[in-house]
Amino acid sequence: MTVFYSPHIFSCTNKRPDDHPRGSCGAKNGEALRQYLREKLKAAGLTEARANVAGCLDQCENGPVLVIYPEGVWYRAADIAAIDRIVDEHLVGGRIVADLQLTEKVKK
Amino acid sequence: MTVFYSPHIFSCTNKRPDDHPRGSCGAKNGEALRQYLREKLKAAGLTEARANVAGCLDQCENGPVLVIYPEGVWYRAADIAAIDRIVDEHLVGGRIVADLQLTEKVKK
Repeated sequence: MTVFYSPHIFSCTNKRPDDHPRGSCGAKNGEALRQYLREKLKAAGLTEARANVAGCLDQCENGPVLVIYPEGVWYRAADIAAIDRIVDEHLVGGRIVADLQLTEKVKK
Repeated sequence: MTVFYSPHIFSCTNKRPDDHPRGSCGAKNGEALRQYLREKLKAAGLTEARANVAGCLDQCENGPVLVIYPEGVWYRAADIAAIDRIVDEHLVGGRIVADLQLTEKVKK
């Protein structure tokens, strides 16, 4: 494994029309939440972390979602409070935030 | 680790102006190469794989780049021949393509 970023986080910011039956992370504030995540990582001193946008992660019904690699932990990150917990409890504290974690892929 | 996609590939397709000193993956055909990667994965029968776009991965000088998670292997994937090798040799064959691999982060 080559580590350029630790952790490397991908936030879905894909935007579908507001009336799309599956919804989308972008239509639920995904990009603004990613910007908040970037600020939060910086404030927490996680200088090796990187928060990238991703295209559609196909977990739309649970959106906004993000995934943390290389750990492979998926989260529902629907608001600022969720991002605060993911950073403080998981990335700083080292404990998975179980009630925000996604462990089941969306079935279509 | 929760595995929704195996492997989960992120291709940089970030586009800067053509005269930007660092260059960019998007200006070097990044999005078309990602589309080719998607077709190639399908043709190789890698139905659990997913090829997402990423925002800027900040390895612009080596672009177009991609990263394969959860393995954490970075590649310079500048043309179709490179993508063919990454899929055939690494993802199907299980051998890292050493001459395309990136192991040093771009220094700025």
